[in-house]
Amino acid sequence: MPQAQNPEQLAEGRAAAQNQEPGAESLTPGPPLKVALLGFGTVGASVARILVERPELANRLRLTHVFNRGVSRKRADWVPDSVLWTDNFDDVLAGRPDVVVEVVGGVTPAREWVTQAIDRGMSVVTANKMLLAAHGPELLRAAAGAGVRLRFEAAVGGGVPLIHGVREGLAGDELTGVAGILNGTCNYILSRMSSTGEAMDIVLADAQRLGYAEADPTADVDGFDAAAKLVVLAGIAFHRHLQMADVPTRSIRPLSTADFQYATRLGCTIRQVSRVQATEGGFHGFVGPVLVPQGSSFGRNQGANNVVSVYGRFGGESSFSGAGAGGPATAVAVVSDLLALTQGGARREAEEWQPAAFVAPPPMPYYLRFVVKDKPGILASIAGSLARHSVNVDALLQEPGYPKDRLPFVVTVEPCEEAALLEALGVMNEERWHAEPPLALPMLADHDS
Amino acid sequence: MPQAQNPEQLAEGRAAAQNQEPGAESLTPGPPLKVALLGFGTVGASVARILVERPELANRLRLTHVFNRGVSRKRADWVPDSVLWTDNFDDVLAGRPDVVVEVVGGVTPAREWVTQAIDRGMSVVTANKMLLAAHGPELLRAAAGAGVRLRFEAAVGGGVPLIHGVREGLAGDELTGVAGILNGTCNYILSRMSSTGEAMDIVLADAQRLGYAEADPTADVDGFDAAAKLVVLAGIAFHRHLQMADVPTRSIRPLSTADFQYATRLGCTIRQVSRVQATEGGFHGFVGPVLVPQGSSFGRNQGANNVVSVYGRFGGESSFSGAGAGGPATAVAVVSDLLALTQGGARREAEEWQPAAFVAPPPMPYYLRFVVKDKPGILASIAGSLARHSVNVDALLQEPGYPKDRLPFVVTVEPCEEAALLEALGVMNEERWHAEPPLALPMLADHDS
Repeated sequence: MPQAQNPEQLAEGRAAAQNQEPGAESLTPGPPLKVALLGFGTVGASVARILVERPELANRLRLTHVFNRGVSRKRADWVPDSVLWTDNFDDVLAGRPDVVVEVVGGVTPAREWVTQAIDRGMSVVTANKMLLAAHGPELLRAAAGAGVRLRFEAAVGGGVPLIHGVREGLAGDELTGVAGILNGTCNYILSRMSSTGEAMDIVLADAQRLGYAEADPTADVDGFDAAAKLVVLAGIAFHRHLQMADVPTRSIRPLSTADFQYATRLGCTIRQVSRVQATEGGFHGFVGPVLVPQGSSFGRNQGANNVVSVYGRFGGESSFSGAGAGGPATAVAVVSDLLALTQGGARREAEEWQPAAFVAPPPMPYYLRFVVKDKPGILASIAGSLARHSVNVDALLQEPGYPKDRLPFVVTVEPCEEAALLEALGVMNEERWHAEPPLALPMLADHDS
Repeated sequence: MPQAQNPEQLAEGRAAAQNQEPGAESLTPGPPLKVALLGFGTVGASVARILVERPELANRLRLTHVFNRGVSRKRADWVPDSVLWTDNFDDVLAGRPDVVVEVVGGVTPAREWVTQAIDRGMSVVTANKMLLAAHGPELLRAAAGAGVRLRFEAAVGGGVPLIHGVREGLAGDELTGVAGILNGTCNYILSRMSSTGEAMDIVLADAQRLGYAEADPTADVDGFDAAAKLVVLAGIAFHRHLQMADVPTRSIRPLSTADFQYATRLGCTIRQVSRVQATEGGFHGFVGPVLVPQGSSFGRNQGANNVVSVYGRFGGESSFSGAGAGGPATAVAVVSDLLALTQGGARREAEEWQPAAFVAPPPMPYYLRFVVKDKPGILASIAGSLARHSVNVDALLQEPGYPKDRLPFVVTVEPCEEAALLEALGVMNEERWHAEPPLALPMLADHDS
């Protein structure tokens, strides 16, 4: 078999589509890739499980190392004896694996380990959205510089095979936006509140008991998990890097059962939506609870499922959905990335995420929910404040059956500038008749959700 | 730039994941691929339009030929002057393009042209489901033998980027089934009948006027279009080739407004579904109208949209949806395939579809609709026939308001062998009280649709 100093360089570019000598397909495949697994939690164990239970992959992938803190309590008897278990990362590096699979999560020390692996010429497969959101551009540059690959199908919507679809299947289009339900915990909570009318604290406690939510649910309910995924998604779709801290992020915590009742009156329900759109001036977007039509793909999405819609200038909307998390689904994405590594293509995948900034969103219609200690004049005060900020009221809804001293009612407003609305709400906030701070939720149309 | 006799051979395998000399990414890209377009109808013109309107692609793709019968009436002034318009395929071959895009459709003469292009070392991108369903294995072998590529993202669900998702994004899983709404015309007809209660002939005539259905709607409504797509989908998912003639295919023509009324009573609606599932004994599946729960992803799919669900042993269900057809959406898939050709990888894509056969489906519940000239004893006769074939009745539905001499009513039956049910219906068919032949539709559960 002929050898060259830089075989990748020879073949990439357009070689494949030009006239080839017949016989390329009879090439004997090389030995299997040596795979080191960093982290043997739910996802890591599922990756190992797939490699063991799909013996037909053995000539392409071979698990050689499992690294985990306190590794002795992790050791599983169904993993082949040939695998080295260690809690010392240097053992992994010394074993010279071809690929390091990082499913530890968190930025520190994952960043250090991934960087070291890349610097030593190892490719990396990671499910780590936080690491990519914070340091994606730097890691992509490092991988390109080292001629290795950094793959992360598992980082956004574990079981939703969207990265291949977006990066390759829609390469022919010019993408204008991505939007999705990226956090399964929030969707579980909100879709259940919507269908049962239960209060958030009850549903959240259940979600924690069932393992859908963590003991500290902050990253999920306050939107940071979804914001990290949105940053990765924007990287894939636009090759731009948004700062996670710049993503306008609102929590689902203030939502009450009354909000779902009013949303239903409006033909809608409430979902945590993550969205970023490209405009000539820059990107705009957000993560947070929004009203979506009940019949829209976001409104119909139930339980912990994820769904992502991608909008293109030529092809319109394409959607992807599936299990957003969970060991086996996420592990499938990791193993798919590993299999892609057995097939060459470092140059093809070299991508850069250029810095990008957020601009103000276009005017949107909003749902405003007030909870007041009722007395005459409140509505006039609200209407006056909105009018003075050029925000036009569309409808007023007040459901019966609530106590006068904690009366929730809703005002919907026509599309308006977010800044003007926030200013109007700021003025109103100084009134003493609020029993709770007012809540403003964007209302998405059918084609946006 | 170094050259080798067979650059593809050098780079494929696992080169990319092994240590590389840095600098592969700075490789100067080759000249743009020369693209010849066979067919300048809706899709072909949209492909040319994208290439013209995305000038950033000019260093990767260059349209050199447009081939069409009666080409003089096709010539478009927005296409660059450098493009050669011809109605002689030999002109295309003589021009030695790198890729031939076949968007002519039909098996003859497309098969001959595609074969000639492959034999001359040109890669082929095609949207031609009929060609692939009939001759996929032979064309894939020819492409592998010639060291060129045959890509067909546009052949199934034009705007649904599912081939990359299935072939690469889910490579880590072991797929057990695929099911989808693959024909936009049928979905337009059935979703409209479901929501408006109109009769099929009225909706079909409207669909023809609006361009959603062809003058001869046979291929769509009788299921041949979907069957061809299902064969291609099975090729992608399982690397197996089912004969199109073996796909059990039923027409949507016998459906009446009464069927939608009864479906609604059952919490369902009716969709043309295409499905194939892998079992240890072989594959089973069908194309045809089925009852699906109103809230399922198939039941909620409206208009001409396509949706495809893929089931994996480890990752569960993943879904893809988007515009199933239309020039721009299909053209995006073609251009995405073209861009993939600029990046090497013939060996990676070499795939074979081995022959495969259908086996009998597992027991399913069925919806049976009778239209009778009412008289005493009919129900007893039906119940008796079913019982003698070990088919258990689940429910009986009869809506008021129909004439006695053309009375539609419905019997649902518990999961049963299709063969036993058909035998029972065959016996019943000899009775003289039928005003129309009985109709049997499988009933899919929520997780199957």
